[in-house]
Amino acid sequence: MNEPENARKTVTIDIRKDLFGANENAAVLNAENFKAHGVFSLDIMGSVGTGKTQLIEALCERLGKKYRILMFAGDLATTIDADRVAAHGVDTVQINTGTACHLDARMIKVALQKVKLADYHIVFIENVGNLICPAGYSLGVDKKVVVVSVTEGPYMIQKHPLTIKSADMIVINKIDLAEALEFDIDALEADIREVDADLPVFRISSKTGEGIEELIAALSL
Amino acid sequence: MNEPENARKTVTIDIRKDLFGANENAAVLNAENFKAHGVFSLDIMGSVGTGKTQLIEALCERLGKKYRILMFAGDLATTIDADRVAAHGVDTVQINTGTACHLDARMIKVALQKVKLADYHIVFIENVGNLICPAGYSLGVDKKVVVVSVTEGPYMIQKHPLTIKSADMIVINKIDLAEALEFDIDALEADIREVDADLPVFRISSKTGEGIEELIAALSL
Repeated sequence: MNEPENARKTVTIDIRKDLFGANENAAVLNAENFKAHGVFSLDIMGSVGTGKTQLIEALCERLGKKYRILMFAGDLATTIDADRVAAHGVDTVQINTGTACHLDARMIKVALQKVKLADYHIVFIENVGNLICPAGYSLGVDKKVVVVSVTEGPYMIQKHPLTIKSADMIVINKIDLAEALEFDIDALEADIREVDADLPVFRISSKTGEGIEELIAALSL
Repeated sequence: MNEPENARKTVTIDIRKDLFGANENAAVLNAENFKAHGVFSLDIMGSVGTGKTQLIEALCERLGKKYRILMFAGDLATTIDADRVAAHGVDTVQINTGTACHLDARMIKVALQKVKLADYHIVFIENVGNLICPAGYSLGVDKKVVVVSVTEGPYMIQKHPLTIKSADMIVINKIDLAEALEFDIDALEADIREVDADLPVFRISSKTGEGIEELIAALSL
């Protein structure tokens, strides 16, 4: 996922195998850790500004009374997202990656060592805002959600088939803006169907709340 | 820029130095190649859906009669962007990176070997849609432009200071949508000023053409 194509040819394949192997090992440990504590975990991926944080806020508002929720926020810098979610009475851990363009399973493993997982029912992991790199790194979660937005223009699905294939479900966010942006949601969903005909797709607005209950039901929460 | 933080500690620093060193060497060769042919080159970076292609189209429309233009389009998949720009009578080369999240100097070096650079005055390079990784790889161009959009939400500058620092100028695109999205452009520009007080900032709409002439003047084209 990470090095430039040419570098891959001239440097070494083994390093990459090692990198991904180490990630997979950590992902398996994370998955076992979540399972052992009966925690439902979600990796929420998507580009900058697709409304990942606002989606988590909408979910926390509706689920916060029924479940104890922990949120990991992945960003290169700032604690903006963690602060926003914390305002809903949810425990948060900000993971600042510095220059790294995605979260990986070892970052989550380290973060999990710093919390008491038994205290929680749900862990929401907001990945770094990037539609490409996070898809290459399993974190060991139950479900991977890719959030796309009507603000991203019409081509984001066609250009990122691997990211779409890596997802367990797609959330089309900010549908309240579709009319103002003259955005064709049906065409976007058709693009998703081209990549994976069976992938669950949810049309939501984290701002207005439209579609959030359907998403919660689909997650069996 | 690319491997996860943890991997960097456990694998090796030398590989990274080698990767970046090889990139820098290729970037120097590209810069010499552009200079030898009197070609002005621009690396256009920015997230998915910020309107990089539409900006290049707007520039080609205005500059196509005065200059011979070549466009390199970097994408994981598809030739959508190159096709759009080619429709303006401009020569294009699509560089599909597969899984790589950015262009690097060696990809450009290979692409330059496939064209007759002496035939052109300007090369526009549209980088892969990603606000993080492309900033770490010099391509050997004259100017690096980062395109942000009012559709990206208010935090993209604060979360990506290194990308902003890597730029020679910032273009705030889609200002025609600011009102509908209730977006505060002054606040965004203030965030840019926090990172770099002297960075040239242009407010444009590639759709309506607003601000494009000012950008062209600033590029001395």
